[in-house]
Amino acid sequence: MIKVGVVGATGYAGVELLRILIRHPNVELVAVTSRSDKGRAVSDVFPNLREHTDITFSDPDDVQLLNCDVVFFATPHAVAMHSIPKLLENGVRVIDLSADFRLEDVALWEQWYGVSHSAPSLIGSAVYGLPERNRVAIKDAQLIACPGCYPTAIQLGFLPLLEKGLINAQGLIANAASGVSGAGRQAKVANLFVEVNDSYKAYAASGHRHVPEIRQELNRVANEPVGLTFVPHLLPMNRGILATLYATPKTPVDQKQLQKVFELAYQDEPYVDVMPAGSHPETRSVKGANMCRIAVHVAEGTGQIIVLSAIDNLVKGAAGQGVQCMNIAFGLNEMQGLQTPALQP
Amino acid sequence: MIKVGVVGATGYAGVELLRILIRHPNVELVAVTSRSDKGRAVSDVFPNLREHTDITFSDPDDVQLLNCDVVFFATPHAVAMHSIPKLLENGVRVIDLSADFRLEDVALWEQWYGVSHSAPSLIGSAVYGLPERNRVAIKDAQLIACPGCYPTAIQLGFLPLLEKGLINAQGLIANAASGVSGAGRQAKVANLFVEVNDSYKAYAASGHRHVPEIRQELNRVANEPVGLTFVPHLLPMNRGILATLYATPKTPVDQKQLQKVFELAYQDEPYVDVMPAGSHPETRSVKGANMCRIAVHVAEGTGQIIVLSAIDNLVKGAAGQGVQCMNIAFGLNEMQGLQTPALQP
Amino acid sequence: MIKVGVVGATGYAGVELLRILIRHPNVELVAVTSRSDKGRAVSDVFPNLREHTDITFSDPDDVQLLNCDVVFFATPHAVAMHSIPKLLENGVRVIDLSADFRLEDVALWEQWYGVSHSAPSLIGSAVYGLPERNRVAIKDAQLIACPGCYPTAIQLGFLPLLEKGLINAQGLIANAASGVSGAGRQAKVANLFVEVNDSYKAYAASGHRHVPEIRQELNRVANEPVGLTFVPHLLPMNRGILATLYATPKTPVDQKQLQKVFELAYQDEPYVDVMPAGSHPETRSVKGANMCRIAVHVAEGTGQIIVLSAIDNLVKGAAGQGVQCMNIAFGLNEMQGLQTPALQP
Amino acid sequence: MIKVGVVGATGYAGVELLRILIRHPNVELVAVTSRSDKGRAVSDVFPNLREHTDITFSDPDDVQLLNCDVVFFATPHAVAMHSIPKLLENGVRVIDLSADFRLEDVALWEQWYGVSHSAPSLIGSAVYGLPERNRVAIKDAQLIACPGCYPTAIQLGFLPLLEKGLINAQGLIANAASGVSGAGRQAKVANLFVEVNDSYKAYAASGHRHVPEIRQELNRVANEPVGLTFVPHLLPMNRGILATLYATPKTPVDQKQLQKVFELAYQDEPYVDVMPAGSHPETRSVKGANMCRIAVHVAEGTGQIIVLSAIDNLVKGAAGQGVQCMNIAFGLNEMQGLQTPALQP
Repeated sequence: MIKVGVVGATGYAGVELLRILIRHPNVELVAVTSRSDKGRAVSDVFPNLREHTDITFSDPDDVQLLNCDVVFFATPHAVAMHSIPKLLENGVRVIDLSADFRLEDVALWEQWYGVSHSAPSLIGSAVYGLPERNRVAIKDAQLIACPGCYPTAIQLGFLPLLEKGLINAQGLIANAASGVSGAGRQAKVANLFVEVNDSYKAYAASGHRHVPEIRQELNRVANEPVGLTFVPHLLPMNRGILATLYATPKTPVDQKQLQKVFELAYQDEPYVDVMPAGSHPETRSVKGANMCRIAVHVAEGTGQIIVLSAIDNLVKGAAGQGVQCMNIAFGLNEMQGLQTPALQP
Repeated sequence: MIKVGVVGATGYAGVELLRILIRHPNVELVAVTSRSDKGRAVSDVFPNLREHTDITFSDPDDVQLLNCDVVFFATPHAVAMHSIPKLLENGVRVIDLSADFRLEDVALWEQWYGVSHSAPSLIGSAVYGLPERNRVAIKDAQLIACPGCYPTAIQLGFLPLLEKGLINAQGLIANAASGVSGAGRQAKVANLFVEVNDSYKAYAASGHRHVPEIRQELNRVANEPVGLTFVPHLLPMNRGILATLYATPKTPVDQKQLQKVFELAYQDEPYVDVMPAGSHPETRSVKGANMCRIAVHVAEGTGQIIVLSAIDNLVKGAAGQGVQCMNIAFGLNEMQGLQTPALQP
Repeated sequence: MIKVGVVGATGYAGVELLRILIRHPNVELVAVTSRSDKGRAVSDVFPNLREHTDITFSDPDDVQLLNCDVVFFATPHAVAMHSIPKLLENGVRVIDLSADFRLEDVALWEQWYGVSHSAPSLIGSAVYGLPERNRVAIKDAQLIACPGCYPTAIQLGFLPLLEKGLINAQGLIANAASGVSGAGRQAKVANLFVEVNDSYKAYAASGHRHVPEIRQELNRVANEPVGLTFVPHLLPMNRGILATLYATPKTPVDQKQLQKVFELAYQDEPYVDVMPAGSHPETRSVKGANMCRIAVHVAEGTGQIIVLSAIDNLVKGAAGQGVQCMNIAFGLNEMQGLQTPALQP
Repeated sequence: MIKVGVVGATGYAGVELLRILIRHPNVELVAVTSRSDKGRAVSDVFPNLREHTDITFSDPDDVQLLNCDVVFFATPHAVAMHSIPKLLENGVRVIDLSADFRLEDVALWEQWYGVSHSAPSLIGSAVYGLPERNRVAIKDAQLIACPGCYPTAIQLGFLPLLEKGLINAQGLIANAASGVSGAGRQAKVANLFVEVNDSYKAYAASGHRHVPEIRQELNRVANEPVGLTFVPHLLPMNRGILATLYATPKTPVDQKQLQKVFELAYQDEPYVDVMPAGSHPETRSVKGANMCRIAVHVAEGTGQIIVLSAIDNLVKGAAGQGVQCMNIAFGLNEMQGLQTPALQP
């Protein structure tokens, strides 16, 4: 059994992580920390877990974390970076679902997140936790920086096209929309039910924190600095991201060729589903599941390539991807604990 | 008082039209027809109108329509074209909210709608009912073909840029999302609450019926055939469209210039609201109101122009726009009967 | 023109009040106060009002309030009671949408609201602002205490039965459910979109603050202390209350008799709609409208009387009822400014 | 492995059943039938199952069903009764999620369902599939008639009170509300997204088909004909039922006693969770889980007993309960295949 700790488990990615870990056959949940809810039963805060665990929230300074084999961080940005060094020194592996170790360029990170990075020396050793790209490196990583939710959906959609050099790497458009759980569980007027329900909007249209992360990773594949415009939107629903991606093919491509490119690219990936030609993935088809469903289209009249990429932001976009990384890092079957079908309807 | 008839009032655009017309100070509602609900009180089908009207649905073949000054069609496509000729012959003006007379190219219309057009000779005389473009022509029109909901939001967003020649007319991207009322009130499994709620998807990514209409109108302004890629999406909400538009400026533009272009373009328009720099219009801010709210952004890093254009698909995208056209056509104050603020929250 | 001030206009009842007052033909909006948003344009906080008003939020201590003919309070409880005495002394009439002057029994008020009442001497002069009960007294009232949202829906449902002595006044059950706007616009985790969406729950099942208010008023009609059990529920929607009321008839009653009792009771009421036998009012049929729709049923097998009473909690349950009271108090047509049909869908 | 067939798997209870059975370690799915979708892959209709099964819908007359050990019916009423006799004759056990064999009184069944029963002789041998009441009988049953969704939630709430004789069996009130999946997957205008979203209503207030079923079962426990008034409501959400139950105690009871009665009654039940005093179960806390969460309250002032009983209508109210019955009937661990925590949020 892998001894696991979870820091920051009172957020939405945190409770989703608990839901998965509790049923994972190779995991023993050793410590679940929350500064605000310390001493309270986890199932008291999240009644869906009542019959599944008796564990209580402990203090994040809890010495128990040092006895873990691996600790997950499901904290807001600029929290994990303070605790991770000590864990690594003690031989505890870390899977960070937050943004702290995703960007290689510290200055860029500090610019977008508005704080000084407290552990810049560790950034170089962090492995970016997108299994479809970094499976081998994840295997031996001590510190895994899991991708953000938008970056996961967007990268999985663009990667096959950039890898094959089929598109103009300038002029990439990523129009994406997320359920409200992506905004976290903080008490903010903007995220109240009444403010969000039966409405829809773009936000951060001039620039969003996930842009540098996406560019960094796409640049690697494209072998050139890509030109990416990204506009996120807020959906009146709980979970799910759909990225609608637009790219200009270098030479005209038809639907059949395009379909084949994606099917080949992901033929061995357990958690990327290339849907049949003509499909339009619905976010509900991945609700609660560690899965990215992709469909590709060629636009009538313009020949633009359109990629539709759907994930559950809390699963393949956070907790599930973290567990997938853990499975790889500990030599388990990559699908262990991650086989529940999406809850549809 | 203008004597008004409404054909096809049991759909969502139809009942919205009734809601507006009932309170319009210059309108006498003479006939409201529905083949399926003939004989039934309108307020029985739509209880929100109980204290506001005693009118009952009559047969669409009702001779009363010939006594009207103007008849609105809120029917599915390929219905209005059969009844309109007789009305026009009898001197009744017609405002068609359906698609029958929007496209100048009959062959193109027949290709996208899959039926033969029964009144092709009338197409030439139809005026496209977008007041912001055609106010003068609407004044004297006998047959007004109101724009579709997506085309309204998308045109109002692109027009100032194309008019000023600021953008490359190729490579236009219109990523738009609509509430479910846009799909009509037909009993279809795909539009059931359970199928739509808490989910999101693109549809018709390879080509949608509104594309030729949008292209036709944008071509006119651009003086060249534009290159437009359009992907519609279905939102889990009742009303509202947000179009997120992407265009490449011919020469780099900054936020301030862009803002000014839009403010000037729409300074005299009562129903286009250019929001302050940095805004992101929410669809709820136009719910139930005849208003298009627009905000403009320049994307960080790429300099792409992003236009956000929000309407209520049933009001500025259908019924409200029709009444705005009626006001113009009958020499009334354009805002008559259309001044209710949006219902937020 | 009536000079009107609004205190606490940044909440949901407050903005609804503004939406109504702005369009009211006899109202001049003189001051709109908010401690937190002072100096900000109202339409900046509520973009739906952008083309309708240029007014800015001012400080609640603003001397302008003293120049008003009437001031509305749309504040949380225990706020209005501090400011009202000075306004009344200066001859300003007050319509309080909050709970401060609803209960005659100060001790009971202090027990349920957990604070000392700062103006107990004014309680006796406050008129309970339910027009269907107190129209005459409202006419001359200086201080009008508008009913709560649940109490409005529940009283209008039980009143005809108690007035006629048709039911056992013990054993009344009021099972009611409200949209989330009833919980206010405070930033609380429990009211976040993700916490409420796609879920449903009862709350305060053992006792709710609205119970003493409802009992006080029903006791008056019944001429005896009624036995009322009230369980409120939270609905995943923005607006609307449905009260499902159960009562035992003293002697068996049939549907036809029951229907007649309600039709007679409310035949002259502009804002109570007794629907036809067999109806089930939907909350959406009153969305945005000052209307209470009622339907009555006799339960199969048990003969229990079931009353269904639907209102928009922000309109007939708050802002609209306040304006209705103002219309009465200032000798206007009671329907002035309150004639917009509900927004359905 | 148990060879299982499913008839009528294109409805919401049907796909939920597939979702559970596919992951059940002791089940081999042999035949899944649907007249309308015959020949189509199940995962084509329900993309959430894409990576989980390759089975295709076959014709309901498929001989394969006769080779099954057990066949589930997830059909509308009056369908299963035609096919069940032949299956039973061939030694196939049947678990019927529909209403066909729930009522002992054929005349009553025919009155409420409006058709003649085609297999009345089998009714006597059907075992009512509520494990908390009939675990022993289910073990050997050939034909199991699973309870309806409302009846499950309501019975589990009233049973401990009636068993102990604590309440007046007359004057029972069951105010219940259900998500829209309870209305089935038929294309009906009333169940369209736009008709249901952001609204709430009661329906069938004068009498609902589930009433005779609930009374029949409560009568058994009470040893007298109970007086039950039941009003169902439609919630703008996908899944979940909350029953809010009201009963008058024979002698006054306090919260502590009441709590104890329920905790004792269900102490050995794996799928009934008596929550701590003061709780209010949310339907989301059982979403996707085979669980009934119950909380009990004593109403302030009146001493009425209030029971809150929450289930997922598709799981403990249908598919999950059916699988629980199967587990019992085939001597498996009752929790096999039913241990996934609810998906919250």
